[in-house]
Amino acid sequence: MQILRVDMGTRTTSWEPLDPAYQELGGRGLTSALINREVPARCDPLGPENKLIFAPGLLTATPLVNTSRISVGTKSPLTGGIKESNAGGVFPLALARCGIAGLVVEGAPGDQGPFLLHIQEGETYLEEAQDLKGMRTYRLVEILKERFGKDVAVMCIGPAGEYGLSCASIQSTDVDMRPCRAAGRGGLGAVMGSKGLKAVLVSTKGRSGPTLSDEASFKEAAKLFSALIKKNPFTGRMLPTMGTACLVAPVNNLGAFPSYNARKGVLEGWESVSGERMAEVIKERKGRPTHMGCSQCMIHCSNEYVDPDGNYLTSSLEYETIWAMGGMLGISDLDTIARLDFLADDIGLDTMSTGVAMAVAMDAGYKRFGDTKAAIEMMEEIATGTDMGRVLGNGPSAVGKHFGHDRVPVVKGQSIAAYDPRAMQGNGVTYATSPMGADHTAGNLIGQYLSGNLDPLSPEGQVEASRRAQVSVAALDCTGLCLLAGGAMFSPEGSELMARMLGNRLGKKIEWEDVLEMGRSVLKAEKEFNRKAGFTKEDDRLPRMFRNEPLPPHNKVFLIEDDDLDKTFDFLEI
Amino acid sequence: MQILRVDMGTRTTSWEPLDPAYQELGGRGLTSALINREVPARCDPLGPENKLIFAPGLLTATPLVNTSRISVGTKSPLTGGIKESNAGGVFPLALARCGIAGLVVEGAPGDQGPFLLHIQEGETYLEEAQDLKGMRTYRLVEILKERFGKDVAVMCIGPAGEYGLSCASIQSTDVDMRPCRAAGRGGLGAVMGSKGLKAVLVSTKGRSGPTLSDEASFKEAAKLFSALIKKNPFTGRMLPTMGTACLVAPVNNLGAFPSYNARKGVLEGWESVSGERMAEVIKERKGRPTHMGCSQCMIHCSNEYVDPDGNYLTSSLEYETIWAMGGMLGISDLDTIARLDFLADDIGLDTMSTGVAMAVAMDAGYKRFGDTKAAIEMMEEIATGTDMGRVLGNGPSAVGKHFGHDRVPVVKGQSIAAYDPRAMQGNGVTYATSPMGADHTAGNLIGQYLSGNLDPLSPEGQVEASRRAQVSVAALDCTGLCLLAGGAMFSPEGSELMARMLGNRLGKKIEWEDVLEMGRSVLKAEKEFNRKAGFTKEDDRLPRMFRNEPLPPHNKVFLIEDDDLDKTFDFLEI
Repeated sequence: MQILRVDMGTRTTSWEPLDPAYQELGGRGLTSALINREVPARCDPLGPENKLIFAPGLLTATPLVNTSRISVGTKSPLTGGIKESNAGGVFPLALARCGIAGLVVEGAPGDQGPFLLHIQEGETYLEEAQDLKGMRTYRLVEILKERFGKDVAVMCIGPAGEYGLSCASIQSTDVDMRPCRAAGRGGLGAVMGSKGLKAVLVSTKGRSGPTLSDEASFKEAAKLFSALIKKNPFTGRMLPTMGTACLVAPVNNLGAFPSYNARKGVLEGWESVSGERMAEVIKERKGRPTHMGCSQCMIHCSNEYVDPDGNYLTSSLEYETIWAMGGMLGISDLDTIARLDFLADDIGLDTMSTGVAMAVAMDAGYKRFGDTKAAIEMMEEIATGTDMGRVLGNGPSAVGKHFGHDRVPVVKGQSIAAYDPRAMQGNGVTYATSPMGADHTAGNLIGQYLSGNLDPLSPEGQVEASRRAQVSVAALDCTGLCLLAGGAMFSPEGSELMARMLGNRLGKKIEWEDVLEMGRSVLKAEKEFNRKAGFTKEDDRLPRMFRNEPLPPHNKVFLIEDDDLDKTFDFLEI
Repeated sequence: MQILRVDMGTRTTSWEPLDPAYQELGGRGLTSALINREVPARCDPLGPENKLIFAPGLLTATPLVNTSRISVGTKSPLTGGIKESNAGGVFPLALARCGIAGLVVEGAPGDQGPFLLHIQEGETYLEEAQDLKGMRTYRLVEILKERFGKDVAVMCIGPAGEYGLSCASIQSTDVDMRPCRAAGRGGLGAVMGSKGLKAVLVSTKGRSGPTLSDEASFKEAAKLFSALIKKNPFTGRMLPTMGTACLVAPVNNLGAFPSYNARKGVLEGWESVSGERMAEVIKERKGRPTHMGCSQCMIHCSNEYVDPDGNYLTSSLEYETIWAMGGMLGISDLDTIARLDFLADDIGLDTMSTGVAMAVAMDAGYKRFGDTKAAIEMMEEIATGTDMGRVLGNGPSAVGKHFGHDRVPVVKGQSIAAYDPRAMQGNGVTYATSPMGADHTAGNLIGQYLSGNLDPLSPEGQVEASRRAQVSVAALDCTGLCLLAGGAMFSPEGSELMARMLGNRLGKKIEWEDVLEMGRSVLKAEKEFNRKAGFTKEDDRLPRMFRNEPLPPHNKVFLIEDDDLDKTFDFLEI
């Protein structure tokens, strides 16, 4: 496996062997280590000193299922800190099959571009493509398909990324070659835009990949691991039938679904946007309630949402989007949410940060909660780059500043996710302390709350639970495994299998404790970078609204003391 | 002397005696102590928990000249930290003559208002004035004059304050009842707007004021002090003939006049905007090159700038404005700068932060440097509250974010002033470490550079010089003395006289060291507040552009190490 460096300043590419110190790193482990070592922590995130790094996981392109995941790392223009955003699709597998452990994009081409980077096994081409400038992603991918054929995987940006907006995503094509998967959070699309890169195309015909010590033994473990995924009721039954939207009902039942810009914990009419209802609607309309989005996926959490006439509206309508583009805006119309989801993918925007930005605007009185037309118009403003569109596309904090409005549910500038910290206290610990800013994928305790192992409303045990989750997930993000398969990985049997497969991949004996140590190293690198960038424990705080405003229906506030938050990362000793 | 509290939530006012602990505090000493004690450090600056406090100096309304200065304190919406902004005019004297040591505005009226607060000796009236909503300040003051007569001093906001913009100022009327003096920095106008307060009117007929132990002795000292002001070549000769614009020539000669958004240290064509040239132009056009702006002023740094036909254009065209609205924008046309100055006063905007915001927009390519028409149009955008106007009116950082542009010369969100830290290293120390954000009035070393006592380009001695200046100025800001008379106050003879007058005023023996201790206490309260608000030493840093980009013509960067910056406030031990 090699590192492919692309200097957008000189438009040159070079292949280099993986530094011996980094041989055992993959995914988030590799991106965070490289960003921490190579990027000046106080640089302009949109300047030439920043780097954008794509790294498949250690187990991507092995026989293990659900490992077509990629970590994209950079210094984030949204948070000002280090960022790893994780995406699926077909690109991660394709990149690993071209023998690439990490694609490092550096420098900046000034006014030139945009460019296309085309990668094949051992070969790269960089070409200017001015005709694609400003193009939305669905149309872009159609054109790329015409020019390059079907056998390419694409990660690309829409106009939002070209504008340099802090909500801009990098979109990744799925198995049907639609740009509907995203490395959404942290404004990665803006960094890609600042590099003058419109799209990276990778041939899906590569035949390289990581070497295994004992392929037969690996396959045996991978098979047992697949069985665990299948057996788990979440990955085996709920996700295939309803996708991640299966969470709408239980989280509303827990009163933890932040709605109307986090004024309430339940969305009125949530039943009409639940996973159950969505599956019914799609079935009635003859869409695909279950759909495979990523290479090697056996969970099939994706879907194809269609209009009443059966026409494609969007793919992979997810829980977090239903929350951000629905609950937060007081919108309980699934067709509108599907339309907003499509627009976000097409413009190249994180559905979560963008939804929350619109929610803050509504909360400030700019538009009325529940106004579906206004929501779609706001998305089009972002797409066309109007002044107000730029404000919205720069995220919730920019909107709060614009209107002098203080109810901005973010940490380090990044919006919370669909779990209110007042009704799921431990998720608040993760939001506050994760080096990523508020991030549900960095350590989500929903599983423990739903299983009754932890009281979501009590401050007891939340710091410990968040710490464990953050370490575990940081380790998972090194492997390339999909987070949704975390239930299998963190089971007693699964953790042993995972250690065995990683040992097989790295050619050495690996225990579960070594895997967790991998997670700790990731967090350490990330915290180090953020410290150099100027972050202190004062940045590990939730906004005051969560301490001051009790959330209906439980009418609780966030209860974890600052001193306890500061204990979350005690173990790092940095 | 009393405290007058106005609760804008309940629209009630109350008089209360000054807390014994605060008996010896005035001006910035009083505002910073009260803000530190009474305002929750993490509150929304535009929310009801914040307070806006007006406090004349300890010596305001005594026989000492040049003491009609007021400190306005609050938690700043621009910096997020504590703020003291100092203004002159007739209001400070009038307020003190009504026996008021501090006017504390608290709460918020929600959607109601705007209101007028009318203060007479011992009496207050609060009335709604919806007809004045959105009105610019010159027209507003005209109407107030019609309604309330000439014997009122006014501090008021324009549309910018009502919009809640972070560059919004509070304008103060001068001796000719023109709203051309300003408490400009830190967005105080937005806080006043959030309180629903359009204007505070104070009768100039009050006959109260501070008690002196020995009036004859005070008068004697005051007379000697006046003689020092007169004798000093800066206050006695340069300021009366050219105003503060007398600095344009020497600072350009030092290569320290940040121009074209701080890309150069000299403005091409600076000669046409120099104090010498301005005085000539005003004289030729039969305006008033020398003019008295504040009550009891003997310096007369103000002027009345007129157009070629002798019509009023603006009053008190100052050095910092010529820099921010001229040098930073690449504009060397004095008539345009005068027009921009008038617009800023009329809309209620800090000329400095607003000028730098426009400079960042030009630097990002939004408009061309030197485009006078574009500059005036941008001001009108702010006045009418367009989306782009709000971005500009929220200051340089908001503009940088909007355009994804990193060349934003601010500290803690507040723009630098007309002394580039690369060519005046010690001013950089003050910008970085002052609790106010980048602020030239918090500790300006220009006098030492011009007199040759300190090398502006060397890192040697700058931290010590900035520390001394910051302590001295914090003390001066407690007295009500105009900063321009600082030369007299900090002379050996003047400091003795000042200690004597303060002792007379406070009824106890006071040494110069006690005066400095007063300054240290102010800084301690301010640093304490900022620490509670989440600031750390990482916030005491200049932006990277000053370290990375050598400034022509000297081609130096900012040289003071971070560790040395952190020593500036060693003595506080907080």
